[in-house]
Amino acid sequence: MSETFVIVGGDAAGMSAASKAKREDPDLEVVVFEKGEWVSYGACGLPYYVKGEIQSLEDLVSVTPEEFREERDIDLRTGHEVTEIDPDAKTVTAVSEGSTLEQAYDYLLIATGAAAVTPPIDGVDLEGVYTLGSMSDGKELREYVARARSNESFQQPDRGPACQYLEDCSGPVGIVGGGYIGIEMAEALAANDFEVHLFQRGERVLNGFSEATSEAVAEHLREQDVALSVGSEVVEVAGSERVEEVVTEDDRVPVEMVLLGTGVRPRTNLAKDAGLECGETGAIATDAYCETTVSDVYAAGDCAEATHTVTGEPAYVPLALTANRHGRAVGQTVAGRPTDGGDITGTAAVKAFDLEAARTGILDHERATEAGFDPITKTINANSRAGYYPEDGTVTVTLTADLETGRVIGASLVSEYGEGAVHRSHALVATLEEDATVFDLENYDLAYAPPFNTTWDPVLVAAKVLAGDLH
Amino acid sequence: MSETFVIVGGDAAGMSAASKAKREDPDLEVVVFEKGEWVSYGACGLPYYVKGEIQSLEDLVSVTPEEFREERDIDLRTGHEVTEIDPDAKTVTAVSEGSTLEQAYDYLLIATGAAAVTPPIDGVDLEGVYTLGSMSDGKELREYVARARSNESFQQPDRGPACQYLEDCSGPVGIVGGGYIGIEMAEALAANDFEVHLFQRGERVLNGFSEATSEAVAEHLREQDVALSVGSEVVEVAGSERVEEVVTEDDRVPVEMVLLGTGVRPRTNLAKDAGLECGETGAIATDAYCETTVSDVYAAGDCAEATHTVTGEPAYVPLALTANRHGRAVGQTVAGRPTDGGDITGTAAVKAFDLEAARTGILDHERATEAGFDPITKTINANSRAGYYPEDGTVTVTLTADLETGRVIGASLVSEYGEGAVHRSHALVATLEEDATVFDLENYDLAYAPPFNTTWDPVLVAAKVLAGDLH
Repeated sequence: MSETFVIVGGDAAGMSAASKAKREDPDLEVVVFEKGEWVSYGACGLPYYVKGEIQSLEDLVSVTPEEFREERDIDLRTGHEVTEIDPDAKTVTAVSEGSTLEQAYDYLLIATGAAAVTPPIDGVDLEGVYTLGSMSDGKELREYVARARSNESFQQPDRGPACQYLEDCSGPVGIVGGGYIGIEMAEALAANDFEVHLFQRGERVLNGFSEATSEAVAEHLREQDVALSVGSEVVEVAGSERVEEVVTEDDRVPVEMVLLGTGVRPRTNLAKDAGLECGETGAIATDAYCETTVSDVYAAGDCAEATHTVTGEPAYVPLALTANRHGRAVGQTVAGRPTDGGDITGTAAVKAFDLEAARTGILDHERATEAGFDPITKTINANSRAGYYPEDGTVTVTLTADLETGRVIGASLVSEYGEGAVHRSHALVATLEEDATVFDLENYDLAYAPPFNTTWDPVLVAAKVLAGDLH
Repeated sequence: MSETFVIVGGDAAGMSAASKAKREDPDLEVVVFEKGEWVSYGACGLPYYVKGEIQSLEDLVSVTPEEFREERDIDLRTGHEVTEIDPDAKTVTAVSEGSTLEQAYDYLLIATGAAAVTPPIDGVDLEGVYTLGSMSDGKELREYVARARSNESFQQPDRGPACQYLEDCSGPVGIVGGGYIGIEMAEALAANDFEVHLFQRGERVLNGFSEATSEAVAEHLREQDVALSVGSEVVEVAGSERVEEVVTEDDRVPVEMVLLGTGVRPRTNLAKDAGLECGETGAIATDAYCETTVSDVYAAGDCAEATHTVTGEPAYVPLALTANRHGRAVGQTVAGRPTDGGDITGTAAVKAFDLEAARTGILDHERATEAGFDPITKTINANSRAGYYPEDGTVTVTLTADLETGRVIGASLVSEYGEGAVHRSHALVATLEEDATVFDLENYDLAYAPPFNTTWDPVLVAAKVLAGDLH
């Protein structure tokens, strides 16, 4: 009799696992329960949908439910919410349109993802307050943009700081949070002619990146007419029915709309109720094979922890590639070929208007010290192409290494968009993955030609400078 | 008494060594003999100077002779040709403007570079036949382009296949050799409205790249109206005084100018005369510290061999980064801090009109087999950015690995210019440098965001596909 692989959640991790398992073992029954209607979608594309560069939500879907069902022979049940897991009986309970069903499993994958965090302040339930986590969030935001832009007052050149007297007007908008969602949405909304106020609680936008990257991005946001407030904690979102003001400790800023880009938290209720352990990060604890503390139950993607390459400790970095990679590994494992999905290095990339930035590893000295390193950090600015080449720009590279061993433990890069900060970060991820040192890195035989870099690529310049400090 | 470090040759390797040695040990006497007038120049920029994107030859010079002398306190003697090295007496003999001088050394660096190869065929000494190795070559070519373009017949829309009846006219030009010099010069000359014929002896342009890269570039050259003849050995350059025809085994093509892009050979006469050993590649044999077979005599840059990371064997890949890196290492060694300049992976990059390409490692199966590998190669095409992102393009990635161990031993990438083939190759160089496998590579946590790649970067897609074949 064939075995059954049940998956809870039909996005990146879930559908990668389903597809891979079925491809490896066509006899396996693969059942996916997805609470909503969308599966396997690129949530990372939502800011560009709101911006208007992507015309249809469907464009974000890489494989449709019909394709999963018909071409990949996966029993995909959308509109089914799993309400309970019984690991002893090896069953899950799902609810759909009021009726309840029970499904037995041999292997289970929890891929419930993450939910946008709503900060614990007053007013976040007012009309006009949005988050951007799901396809329906994206749809609502795009509709808001379209509605606002069609409003006559929006089109007046001097529409003033706010036009609260009009219903659903298109005055200034507030973004709470200067992480990549906040910054991508600042770009999306500014491109639609909104006056954008961005509120960042801490002193820096893109907090996980290097200070040099944060500063470059902050300066650029201001150049792009984003009203950026750093060190500015939002204590209330105010309004009578609709949002009218963002209230910080020392300011009240009139707004017509608020986007909360205040991070995500793993959806773990189902797992906890079933007795699975969560780690210190709050996400579901897993081993190298993404197996949870309960046998035959796996967790992958934005609901789960992963091991950080540099620290060797569990970390929670909910991003698309890890979800895909770990989902795929679980699919392979369940199909009979145990597969380690690999560690993470905490890599992230963002386009911020006309800049691009990437980061990987550990840049924070406190965190590095806790992990047993003696961190040293250097930042350099270098030409992105040969100085004499007409399209010259600048790449700023920050490298963090361990003083004693020279091991590279973190990197952050920023450049003009198109000048290669993000693709150059790939080499640094490899450096981290391979536990290589700055002395190794400075001798890497990287490609060079004048249209692409200087003889010493900026990455090598950074390695040379940092290595010089380690002798 | 202070020691003396003598350097023969004032380009990348020589001046990097001089600068580093003096910076590390200011008491060291550093004497550089350079036969010509130019030092420390970016020969890689010459095609862009001929193209007209760089306005002045001086722009290619990173540090001027005056700066070396005055700011870096280096005894730089341009216009001095070293004619003899006596390793027993530890002296060199140099000639300048007819007078001869002898200079004692404690340490010697031979950095004589490489010379453009002239194929052993008739007619290469005709007027109108050029090579592109030196600054003066670049100057002559640019003058040719300017002269030709100012010719009235050049400006006529139907100037015909050739206008041999005019002196120094601007008809079609022939490029012999489809390596990166040939291709960069095809771009430079086509941009100046020349009709370009490119003759490649072998079946493929960019022979050291993957077949997929070669094919993509060949197709693109033809799209750009380059008349490309592959498998077409040039047996003669014909003309009475000036070049008039390129003669292949089965064709005679009228041309007004010929550029020979047929490779370079190391300048080793001086070294050989002094009794230094050359390797099988014909270049000067060195150890990991760039020391030759004679004590205290070093060789670096385009005249010397280097160890290939993948094969562990000496190789001859004369490129700018190695010259800089090894020169710098020698400078450090001579100043008292023995420094291994690192291996090479045979990395190269080229812009070909609106494409970009990079290669690294061993792609040739015969060579891989000789080096003890059991090679397997896969090529994939993948979106350069998220499929739904407006600026989408394609990256073609070829990976070669060892079938038994999975170790990545070679890579070649090509994409539209700006779509990141070259910067993405950096990660593959790192993979090679660290002896990593495709299984390692497929789990690399590379940066992802829709404006920069798909969730699985093309590099990861290639690794996944190749890894799938190795199970």
